[in-house]
Amino acid sequence: MRRLTAIALMAALSSGAFAQEALWGKAPVVSPEIHADGTVTFRIEAAKAGKVQLTGDFLPVKQVDTPNGTFTVRPPAEMKRSADGIWEYTTADALAPELYSYSFVVDSMRTLDLANVYVSRDVSTLNNIFIIPGERASLYTVHDVPHGNVAKVWYHSDALGTDRRMTVYTPPGYDSSETRYPVLYLLHGMGGDENAWSELGRTAYILDNLIASGKATPMIVVMPNGNVSQTAAPGETADGFTVPTLQRPKTMEGTFEAAFPEIVSYVDRTYRTIPEKHSRAIAGLSMGGFHSLHISKQYPDVFDYIGLFSAAIDHYTEHSEVYDDFEGKLARQFAAKPALYWIGIGKTDFLYQSNEKFRKHLDSKGYPYTYYENEDGHIWRNWRIYLTEFVPQLFR
Amino acid sequence: MRRLTAIALMAALSSGAFAQEALWGKAPVVSPEIHADGTVTFRIEAAKAGKVQLTGDFLPVKQVDTPNGTFTVRPPAEMKRSADGIWEYTTADALAPELYSYSFVVDSMRTLDLANVYVSRDVSTLNNIFIIPGERASLYTVHDVPHGNVAKVWYHSDALGTDRRMTVYTPPGYDSSETRYPVLYLLHGMGGDENAWSELGRTAYILDNLIASGKATPMIVVMPNGNVSQTAAPGETADGFTVPTLQRPKTMEGTFEAAFPEIVSYVDRTYRTIPEKHSRAIAGLSMGGFHSLHISKQYPDVFDYIGLFSAAIDHYTEHSEVYDDFEGKLARQFAAKPALYWIGIGKTDFLYQSNEKFRKHLDSKGYPYTYYENEDGHIWRNWRIYLTEFVPQLFR
Repeated sequence: MRRLTAIALMAALSSGAFAQEALWGKAPVVSPEIHADGTVTFRIEAAKAGKVQLTGDFLPVKQVDTPNGTFTVRPPAEMKRSADGIWEYTTADALAPELYSYSFVVDSMRTLDLANVYVSRDVSTLNNIFIIPGERASLYTVHDVPHGNVAKVWYHSDALGTDRRMTVYTPPGYDSSETRYPVLYLLHGMGGDENAWSELGRTAYILDNLIASGKATPMIVVMPNGNVSQTAAPGETADGFTVPTLQRPKTMEGTFEAAFPEIVSYVDRTYRTIPEKHSRAIAGLSMGGFHSLHISKQYPDVFDYIGLFSAAIDHYTEHSEVYDDFEGKLARQFAAKPALYWIGIGKTDFLYQSNEKFRKHLDSKGYPYTYYENEDGHIWRNWRIYLTEFVPQLFR
Repeated sequence: MRRLTAIALMAALSSGAFAQEALWGKAPVVSPEIHADGTVTFRIEAAKAGKVQLTGDFLPVKQVDTPNGTFTVRPPAEMKRSADGIWEYTTADALAPELYSYSFVVDSMRTLDLANVYVSRDVSTLNNIFIIPGERASLYTVHDVPHGNVAKVWYHSDALGTDRRMTVYTPPGYDSSETRYPVLYLLHGMGGDENAWSELGRTAYILDNLIASGKATPMIVVMPNGNVSQTAAPGETADGFTVPTLQRPKTMEGTFEAAFPEIVSYVDRTYRTIPEKHSRAIAGLSMGGFHSLHISKQYPDVFDYIGLFSAAIDHYTEHSEVYDDFEGKLARQFAAKPALYWIGIGKTDFLYQSNEKFRKHLDSKGYPYTYYENEDGHIWRNWRIYLTEFVPQLFR
C-alpha cells in the first residue's frame, strides 16, 4: 500500500489546489450533509469573509416588485460562521424529496460549493445539485435496475446543410436484442440544447426507473437540438468555448419545425424503431412545447402522443408556412384522433394564461386533451415532474 | 420580439443568482479573455476581497521541499483589483497552444470562474478550462469535420456479477455504413472512471480530428471503468452523489485484468469490430498503463498494439494469478511480435525511474518497443499528448 499512497499523493499534487490539502493534511469540508431527519447542512470554508449566504431553490419564496412586474424570488439565507472559518447553514425543516440546486454568496461574490462535484449548467449558470431521495425524486436517482444507454449522436441535416448533434437514449437491452421500440422525441426550451433533457431533466434515470417498475413501455428517447443556428451544445462546436446565451437567432421561426421530418427519418433509418404514428410521441418544454405543438399539427400522421410542458403557445417571432392555417391544421390533427394530447403547466407560470386561452380554444372545438396543473412556475422541477407524468401514458 | 424577451427574462428569473444580474442589469465579467497576441486575461468580481489569486497549470513552476520529497508546484499568481471591484490578471507572455485549467483563490478560499461554464472534474477537484488553439492543441478543439458518436454504454459483467458502464466512441459514418472497424481499448488512471478519457482526455475530439486529416485509421475507442469496486463513475451509480476518491479498493489486484476478455467479447458482439488481434489496441495512463501491461501479456493473442502512458509498471497491491510468471508471459507476448509496444513518459514523472528500469529490462531481452519522452510529469497534458502520438500508429 505504500506504493499506492505514493501514486495517490503524486496524482493529488498534479492538480493545483488539491495539492495544498494533500500537503497540509486538512480535513475536507463536508457539504451538503443530508441528515437522517431530512434537514440539510451546507458548509463552506471562507475564514476571511464578513458575510456568507446560501442561495437555493428550496429556500422560502418572497414576492418582489420590479418595473417588469411582480416576481417570485427566493432570497438568500444567512450562513453562520463556526469553528475554523467554516460557515454553516442548516435548513429549518426537512426538505421534501426533490432535486435541488444551490450556490453560495461570499461577500457578494457568487461561488459554487467545491466540496460537491455535482454541478449542472442551465444556460450560462452553474449550480451545485443534490437530491433528497424518496417519492417522485426516487425517479431522478440511480437504482440497481437495468440501465439504458445515452449517446451523443451526429446526423446530417440536408435542410440546414450541416451535421448536427442529438442525444439518444436507448432502453435497457437494446444492444442485445432485435426488438423494435417506439420513440419519444423530447425537445428543450430557449437557451437549452441537446444536453438539457439528459442533464437537467435526468431523462435517462427517469426512463430507467419507470421501465424497471413496469410503469413505462421501453422506448427510445431522442433529444435533438432545437436551435437551428447551433449545430450542438455550447463548447461542442467549432465556435469554441463560447458563453451560452438564452436568446439565439432562429429559434421560433419555423425552420426547426419544417425540418423535423429529417430527424424522424434519420432515427427510423438508424435505430430499431417502430416507424409508425402509433409508436411516436413528441413533447417539449417552453419553446420545445411550442415546437411540439406546431410540429405535431404540421405532420398530423407522424405523432400520436403530444406533450406540451409549460408551452410557449403563440410566441413565434416571424412568419413561416408552419404557422399558417393554425385552425385548419389543428382540425386535421384532432380529426386524426391523437392517442394523447397532454398539457402541463404550473399555477404561477408566466405562460399560464396563454395556456388557459389555448385550452379554452380546444374546449370550444371539442378537441380532447389531458390537463395537469401543479404548483410553481417555469422551472426544471416542473419539467421533470411532467416527464414522469407523461411517459407512463405513452404507447399503451 | 417583446414576447421573446419576456420568456428570456422569466427563464432568467427562474434560476436564483442569474436573476439578480437580470434584474440589476449588470454587465457580466468576461473571463478568460484570450487576446490576439496569445496572452490571456482572467477576471473575477470580488469587491470586498482583500487578496485574490489565480492558480493554473500555465503559471511558472517552482520546486518545493516536503517531508515526502521535492515536488514541482505552480504557486498562485497575484491578481490586481481594478474598477468596480473586478480583479484581473494578464499573463506576462503568450501561452503556448494547449488545454489549460485554472481556478481563483479569493481570500484563501478557492472558487471557480463562474463567467466560464467550461469545467472539468479530476477526481474530486473541479477546475475551469480553456484552450489556446494551434499546433497540437488544435486536436483538442472541435472543427467542422465529421464527428464520431460518444455513448455511455452498460454491459453485463459475469465475472463481477453486475452491470457496468463504459464509454464508447464510434467513428464518423459508423451508423450509416456496414464497415467493420478496429478497436482501441483506452484505460484510465487511479481516481478516474469511464468518463476520464472522454472528458479530461478529449478523446472524441482527438479522434475526429486525426481521422479527418487522414492521420488515424477510423476506429472504435472503448473506455471501460477500471475500478472493479465501482459500476460506473461517481454520481452514476446507486451510491448517489458521493465524493469521488483517488484510492478505491481493488484497483490493482488482478480482478479487472482477469475479467477483461468479457469486455472484448461484449464489444465484438455488440459493435461492428474486426475481431482479430491485428485490429485491437490497448493503452492506458498510470494505473491504466499498469492494466494495459498486464492484460496484454496475460492475453498475448488478443492485442497487437500496446500503449503504456506514464505507466505504474510494478505497483500491484496483492498477489494475483495475473501477475505470476511475469517473465514467461512477457516472453510469450514478445515472441508473438506485437505490432507496436509504445512507452511514453515525462522527464519529471515520479514513475520515470520504474519506467526506465522496465525499458532496460526490455532492452536486455531484446524486446522491441517505441519510446517517447517529453517534459513534465504525471499530468493530463501529457496523456493527451501521448494519445495523439499513439493513435496515428495504430492499425496501419
